[in-house]
Order: sequence, then structure tokens, then C-alpha cells
Amino acid sequence: MMARIHISPKPDILDPQGKAVNSALHDLGYREVSEVRVGRYITLEIQPQPGQDSRARLEEMCRRLLANINVETYTIEIHEG
Amino acid sequence: MMARIHISPKPDILDPQGKAVNSALHDLGYREVSEVRVGRYITLEIQPQPGQDSRARLEEMCRRLLANINVETYTIEIHEG
Repeated sequence: MMARIHISPKPDILDPQGKAVNSALHDLGYREVSEVRVGRYITLEIQPQPGQDSRARLEEMCRRLLANINVETYTIEIHEG
Repeated sequence: MMARIHISPKPDILDPQGKAVNSALHDLGYREVSEVRVGRYITLEIQPQPGQDSRARLEEMCRRLLANINVETYTIEIHEG
């Protein structure tokens, strides 16, 4: 199965990278843009062993390694097959 | 309207960041994981001016600034309202 993980800065946290992209887009003439937020998008293949709860383990991976839960939120989608 | 942009390493391109994450997950005991790819996830608000083609302009933003089209692919989703 395949998992897709989105990691984004929390809404109330400053996002310096998003601010920089916003500013660069304005400089290029794209004035219609605002509120740019830059996060990460991680895909992975999972071959679960018998008895493994893939979603619970992906939650663990996010909390332990992939996301900084102090300043980021994450969502996990699992696609079978 | 809101736009969501996914930028990922092309399938045939090495992804050193994905390899590093894969290896770190294995070290933590998540041996069921493989094929990790790390991309970017960008959200932005758009207030199109009359006559502007938002999708065409988002494509331009991706090609000119947001993505490196030599080694990355991107997808654009637009959500009205």
C-alpha cells in the first residue's frame, strides 16, 4: 500500500519560507497571491507485517521523525494496493 | 479561491532526502517502509483579477519559481470559495 503524508506549518505559526515565496511571487507580478504556506509532501510504500496497524505506525513515524508537532500539523492518507 | 500545489522529485530522479528519511525510519524499526519520496506542499490564496486565468498563472508560477522542472513534477488543484 502507499501512504501520502502532508506536513504543514500550524496556522498560527509564522512561516518564513511561505513569506519569502509570497514576496517573490509578488515581485514577479503575481499580485493576486496571498497567504502562501510551504509544507512537505512525503510518499512512501508500506508492506505491513501481519498484525501491524499501519495507520498507528504512520502516526508514530510522523510524531517521532517526520513532523515537528510543536509547529507543524500532519495528515495521513493510505491508499490500498 | 485556494490553490494546493504538490511538487515531487521525478520518478527517475534520485531523491537524497527521501533516501535519508527511509534509512532513518528503518533505524527506528519501521522496516515495512520503502520508496520514500520527499516533496513540497504549497498552499496559497488567490484573488484573481477580472480576465485572469488562474490555472494558467499557477502553471507559470510553478515553472518560473516554485518547481525545478528539470528534476521535479508538480500538480495544481484549485478550490473555489
